[in-house]
Amino acid sequence: MKLKQPGIVAGVSNRHVHLSREDVEVLFGKGYTLTPIKDLGQPGQFACQETVIIVGPKGAIEKVRVLGPERKETQVEISLTDAFKLGVKPPVRDSGDLDNTPGIVIVGPKGSVIKDRGVIIAKRHIHMHTSNAEKYGVKDKQIVKVLVEKEGRRLIFDDVLIRVSEKYALEFHVDTDEANAALLKTGDLVYIIEE
Amino acid sequence: MKLKQPGIVAGVSNRHVHLSREDVEVLFGKGYTLTPIKDLGQPGQFACQETVIIVGPKGAIEKVRVLGPERKETQVEISLTDAFKLGVKPPVRDSGDLDNTPGIVIVGPKGSVIKDRGVIIAKRHIHMHTSNAEKYGVKDKQIVKVLVEKEGRRLIFDDVLIRVSEKYALEFHVDTDEANAALLKTGDLVYIIEE
Repeated sequence: MKLKQPGIVAGVSNRHVHLSREDVEVLFGKGYTLTPIKDLGQPGQFACQETVIIVGPKGAIEKVRVLGPERKETQVEISLTDAFKLGVKPPVRDSGDLDNTPGIVIVGPKGSVIKDRGVIIAKRHIHMHTSNAEKYGVKDKQIVKVLVEKEGRRLIFDDVLIRVSEKYALEFHVDTDEANAALLKTGDLVYIIEE
Repeated sequence: MKLKQPGIVAGVSNRHVHLSREDVEVLFGKGYTLTPIKDLGQPGQFACQETVIIVGPKGAIEKVRVLGPERKETQVEISLTDAFKLGVKPPVRDSGDLDNTPGIVIVGPKGSVIKDRGVIIAKRHIHMHTSNAEKYGVKDKQIVKVLVEKEGRRLIFDDVLIRVSEKYALEFHVDTDEANAALLKTGDLVYIIEE
């Protein structure tokens, strides 16, 4: 097995929500502005001080982090573990691809919204800048295999989507189920397998 | 990639506890006998009607299933997702290998026990009968790779332990994090990769 060098830094995504302007105002109040507390790996993206409660037919999860900036449409990204707890059946999807996704109730300090769509399990992916794609010899939307070598739970993720943009920084994104299955933590290095 | 045929049925293990006779009596009452409600894939093993609450420094998880029969030592098997919620740091271990594992509080309807060890994340493994091992050409304690081919989250588990016994039935065991990372469900078929 030949690996493409150098390794790529992993970023583990915990459950989170992206909110539309309209939903920010319902959940947190008219004219409210989200409060950035931490920059994320991708330029311009940030974690907010604000959290919400998400509620499905079988359960609720509290303290779900809001990520900024605001988006055109509200999107809730959860793990399959979370989905079982909530009683919803989201598909594995790329961010923004929300047709035929299940809805959910979102509760904030000032109000609640009943979304009729927007819940997904994020498809694992590698963000990379155009210059990285050239170096690794891969293209936007290509599917690659990624090796994670943690003691006792070594594994190979197939179905890893390459996402290339001038706006992206190099980062391998998985959710908490995927990270835990491999004992992977944010900051660990993973490797694209040469095919 | 060549696969060993036939496929092996997966069994997804949710969090559970195995209890010693002594702990059964503290948690459920003097002279209490566990109540089997469902046979498991391995001969002689069963799920019980009884559940307990497990509690760590950061949280509690309710309705944790007790599995029977009773064992010599109490053992609590959780996922890494659960470990974060509870605030404990168990290692990835084979069942029964409890040296230097963290403890936990177990609460039952009649009493509670404070265990100073016994919490593990189960190492993924394949149970097989001696006759299966011969057929697949593998040995007890060998490490193999296993392919899971579910749409959108295809992956290869390395570090899969082979466990051979006259008492075992053929079954691939993973926890909920591992299953969810691969969209794997109990009853799905997986394949040992020929090396």
